[in-house]
Amino acid sequence: MVKARIIVRYKPGILDPEGKTIYDALRSLGFEKVEGVETGKYFEITFAGDVDKNKAKELTTDACERLLANPVIQNYSFEIVEGDR
Amino acid sequence: MVKARIIVRYKPGILDPEGKTIYDALRSLGFEKVEGVETGKYFEITFAGDVDKNKAKELTTDACERLLANPVIQNYSFEIVEGDR
Repeated sequence: MVKARIIVRYKPGILDPEGKTIYDALRSLGFEKVEGVETGKYFEITFAGDVDKNKAKELTTDACERLLANPVIQNYSFEIVEGDR
Repeated sequence: MVKARIIVRYKPGILDPEGKTIYDALRSLGFEKVEGVETGKYFEITFAGDVDKNKAKELTTDACERLLANPVIQNYSFEIVEGDR
């Protein structure tokens, strides 16, 4: 069984208010060695048993382009892995 | 410069309505080889220049336990990497 592990994050320069809020929270908790926080979304897609790694790569790219990422403000990256979580 | 790349996701058995919605959307877009979708959050923390990998690991664990993950319903995993994005 093949899975895609996908990270969708903001492009450089795009405002990330959640990251800023977490940064402020960490600093106020005493994490003074933290210099920045960026946030993103994680998706894990499980494919049917007859999908090989190449096909999974193609399907994942398509899913990112069409649904998971907003290409105007977000980048995506992924890896295709075998087996369970 | 050391960074932590963190993934926070639901524990097995915890309902993931966003994952279900994305699964339904992918199927209706024609991705019939998709068998499941799980979602999570991605965080990237940048540490100050004098933080080494061991210290970063310790700080990241602490940040996950105290702020980034809800230990009742979520698991976290992370890797510590050198350099920029």
